[in-house]
Amino acid sequence: MRASQLFIPTLREVPAEAEVISHKLLLRAGFIRKAAAGVYTLLPLAWRVIKKIEQIVREEMDREGGQEIMMPVIQPAELWQESGRWDVYGPELFRLKDRHGRDFCLGPTHEEIITDLVRHEISSYRQLPRLLYQIQNKYRDERRPRFGLMRGREFIMKDLYSFDRDTAGLDESYKKMYGAYTRIFQRCGLRFRPVEADSGAIGGKDTHEFMVLAESGEATVLFCPQESCGYAANDERAETPPDLWTAGGEPAPLQEASTPGSHTVAQVTAALGVDPRQIIKTMLYRTEQGVVAALVRGDREVNEIKLQKAANVLRLELADASTVRQITGARVGFAGPVGLPGVKIIADREVMALVNAVAGANRDETHLINVNPGRDFTPHLVTDLCLARAGDPCPHCGAPLEAARGIEVGQVFKLGEKYSRALNATYVDENGQTRYMVMGCYGIGVTRTMAAAIEQNHDQNGIIWPVSIAPYQAVVVPVSNKEPAHMALAEKVYRDLAAAGMEVVLDDRDERPGVKFKDADLIGYPLRLTIGNRTVESGQVEVRRRGGGETVPVPVDDVVETVRQILAQS
Amino acid sequence: MRASQLFIPTLREVPAEAEVISHKLLLRAGFIRKAAAGVYTLLPLAWRVIKKIEQIVREEMDREGGQEIMMPVIQPAELWQESGRWDVYGPELFRLKDRHGRDFCLGPTHEEIITDLVRHEISSYRQLPRLLYQIQNKYRDERRPRFGLMRGREFIMKDLYSFDRDTAGLDESYKKMYGAYTRIFQRCGLRFRPVEADSGAIGGKDTHEFMVLAESGEATVLFCPQESCGYAANDERAETPPDLWTAGGEPAPLQEASTPGSHTVAQVTAALGVDPRQIIKTMLYRTEQGVVAALVRGDREVNEIKLQKAANVLRLELADASTVRQITGARVGFAGPVGLPGVKIIADREVMALVNAVAGANRDETHLINVNPGRDFTPHLVTDLCLARAGDPCPHCGAPLEAARGIEVGQVFKLGEKYSRALNATYVDENGQTRYMVMGCYGIGVTRTMAAAIEQNHDQNGIIWPVSIAPYQAVVVPVSNKEPAHMALAEKVYRDLAAAGMEVVLDDRDERPGVKFKDADLIGYPLRLTIGNRTVESGQVEVRRRGGGETVPVPVDDVVETVRQILAQS
Repeated sequence: MRASQLFIPTLREVPAEAEVISHKLLLRAGFIRKAAAGVYTLLPLAWRVIKKIEQIVREEMDREGGQEIMMPVIQPAELWQESGRWDVYGPELFRLKDRHGRDFCLGPTHEEIITDLVRHEISSYRQLPRLLYQIQNKYRDERRPRFGLMRGREFIMKDLYSFDRDTAGLDESYKKMYGAYTRIFQRCGLRFRPVEADSGAIGGKDTHEFMVLAESGEATVLFCPQESCGYAANDERAETPPDLWTAGGEPAPLQEASTPGSHTVAQVTAALGVDPRQIIKTMLYRTEQGVVAALVRGDREVNEIKLQKAANVLRLELADASTVRQITGARVGFAGPVGLPGVKIIADREVMALVNAVAGANRDETHLINVNPGRDFTPHLVTDLCLARAGDPCPHCGAPLEAARGIEVGQVFKLGEKYSRALNATYVDENGQTRYMVMGCYGIGVTRTMAAAIEQNHDQNGIIWPVSIAPYQAVVVPVSNKEPAHMALAEKVYRDLAAAGMEVVLDDRDERPGVKFKDADLIGYPLRLTIGNRTVESGQVEVRRRGGGETVPVPVDDVVETVRQILAQS
Repeated sequence: MRASQLFIPTLREVPAEAEVISHKLLLRAGFIRKAAAGVYTLLPLAWRVIKKIEQIVREEMDREGGQEIMMPVIQPAELWQESGRWDVYGPELFRLKDRHGRDFCLGPTHEEIITDLVRHEISSYRQLPRLLYQIQNKYRDERRPRFGLMRGREFIMKDLYSFDRDTAGLDESYKKMYGAYTRIFQRCGLRFRPVEADSGAIGGKDTHEFMVLAESGEATVLFCPQESCGYAANDERAETPPDLWTAGGEPAPLQEASTPGSHTVAQVTAALGVDPRQIIKTMLYRTEQGVVAALVRGDREVNEIKLQKAANVLRLELADASTVRQITGARVGFAGPVGLPGVKIIADREVMALVNAVAGANRDETHLINVNPGRDFTPHLVTDLCLARAGDPCPHCGAPLEAARGIEVGQVFKLGEKYSRALNATYVDENGQTRYMVMGCYGIGVTRTMAAAIEQNHDQNGIIWPVSIAPYQAVVVPVSNKEPAHMALAEKVYRDLAAAGMEVVLDDRDERPGVKFKDADLIGYPLRLTIGNRTVESGQVEVRRRGGGETVPVPVDDVVETVRQILAQS
């Protein structure tokens, strides 16, 4: 392809709207343009990357017996009412009415549609297992869409659904998909880690997330450095073996202490001269069942997912200052569990091991000291509320966990019978018994994988595409369009590479070499082949790998073979 | 692929919901299932066909310099307000609001989005021409979705948009697309005809429709049988050179005639003993500008597209009985142009040539005779209102036109500056002048092409796929799964064909041979290879072409080569 013909509107300036690097680079390198908040047009280069990722996904799904179909984007409300999700899903579901006033939604996921299909078409154990998938636009009306393709409202996903006879079959399907996902992200050239995850609103039991490792990742991955162990989990999910630390001593009488201006753990620690672990941190949350107080040790953060499960509520958000004032009578920073009426108190196990702890007094500028759990307050529930962190012991082997940042690009779920029960998807087994199908679902964010690849692979000059998903494998840059000798050699090299089946761009634009080199780096072609005076004089093309390699002179006649070898090793 | 693994839920019964053959066969052969009215899931076989059509389309678009992109399905209302189409489009546009109350629609077409993109990214004549396309779901909230994939509410389209410097450039782009479309439908193995068409609501001037010829087609194509001429047009579009027939004679005084029960042309003809051409047919239409009366000769039908243009109205529908009563004072069948107050009268040219014609008297059971246009009534406008028909003279060469039924699968449009003016998409030309870009748009209904292929290619047993778009090229049918010798040979033939790169299904299901043969015909594999006792005894595989060919015995070792040859000739 000739660059003069390609629609690649690169930008010199970093667009103001972009916060994260993938968003900035996708805009600057001419891959995407915004059509509305969280809604993008994918330009030719982005679309090439997407198609490559899709093809890798497709091949690995097919290899495991997946069959590709295409379900509708607009889904009738009836099925969502049958599953119960129409009311539960909330404002993230795009809803619309047709001209007859019938309710529809834009699919954020397809459990209802596929289960409806399968319940009508599959009736016998002989027809199971079945793995059906699609690669398609999905919709989620994010409150604050941002980060470009990382969190859009319209995005491309692969979603596969497995239907099995029993949980043993589901385990098998899950294992297949786990393996396929591992191969997919390997083939995409990404560093990633599958981690235990939380199943969230979609329901189900076992679930793993596939995380592309990148410093900019929104998620924290905790992993065991012991190779023989291999435990890895999203920090929201990671179990936290309790650290039953205590300063010890005899319970002393409860006392008030004046702590003016001390509303953070660090301030209280300094004011009272205590270890942060000695402090009971009291966090108030609003839920649909009233306010809940979560107690963790002063050195800990509340894991809101664990709290939500423990409190058994659908919605959870940190209480605002006025709610805190209303409940505790004090401003934020002085809440405590002693004498806190009408609030459900849930305490972490570590809190219960403390003796003579410090807690807010529910009065401005005041804390309580010598607070003894059990004596001075009794929680409604004691459980694990801790957000795991680096240094916590591995729940499997006890070694200190390490932390990394990750971007979730895939998730595999064991749904079990959740949807087959709700929609009555049954089959008749070998013994003539009617049984529910056992389901799994498996998603990959295709557009998100493209963005994650950039988050992981870039430098100050632009994108560094892994070869397997690069929009083109190489760019041929004649130093000057005005030199017929440059252009003639560039044309030859370009044609030779194209004839050998490589995906190559000839930068035939009438631009200064600096502009061409900058664009080549920005766009992130894995290989740049420069053709200038030296090529004309000595017959050497300068071949340079994007992202690290030095420039290597290669004789014109060896270019195809050299490029082939470099790409094969990538 | 093994049939036992494939998800092909064939049906014995013809589903009651299906009216047309493609809908019936797509359901029966296990290609599609309905998710909602006009909304379908495409099952594995259909999806394979779609991907093949898409690939043919893609290759031909790319060959003409088209660049593939992916625009959003959800489009912000602002752009549609800017183009003026938000208010004009009517109930066929699916509209929705996001969580912040902002208006969006589901794209039925992408002129606004692409023009918005291009106006921001292209500023110089050097960047033109540009051909950008996508293959994507489109949405149209049909009042009465029906005929399966022929008229759905969610469907797959390829839409390409061309941007040129001037009309000469547009002519060039249009020619390229016309050529590409011709190659696409040829490669899909379809009999088709490009015809002059009407541009409808989308605006613009020149336009051609690509019609797949099939008896079940909704459209009538009129074409000139003279090869040297080649004129062809949609009947809605075809110009009608007027047939200025007249019975002649001197104008006689206007008279009333009692015509009880005669409200059709045939009845009036019989009652009064006149030629149907002598009758002035008066059709009343409701429009947003009041009622319009269209006059055509009794042997003619009104072309509502021509009428809409002549009346210069946005909406047009035949008046109901109560409106007719209100306007004329009579029941349907007795309207006439004489003394019809407050109604805009538009007459066909042929009407004006009549002398002593017959028309309704605007009184029940009464007609007028000796009606003389000009003397007894004066139309507001005289123009061509006729729906063309077979036998009409070709407007180019005068030879009598012939008629065929067709299904519109593609359309090419010259939009001109309609959208570039509305959205201010300009560029600076060679002389530093700011000018509007000149646009074209070019659509292919991909799902519709699949349905049209079936409408054109089927018999009483099922689908007859053209080889290039068949879901698989061949099926290998062992007569009995219980015979190890059948199965072993079938496996060998299947593997040989697959190893040679052919797309082949092994029907390894434990079914009677009759069921397998019926399914093979229903699904429409181009080739069926039967392996039974004769194969075991004589080493001959029975090779049969779907749709006509007789069964040919082929030695097992020659099967791959024979199949290759047959497919190559298809």
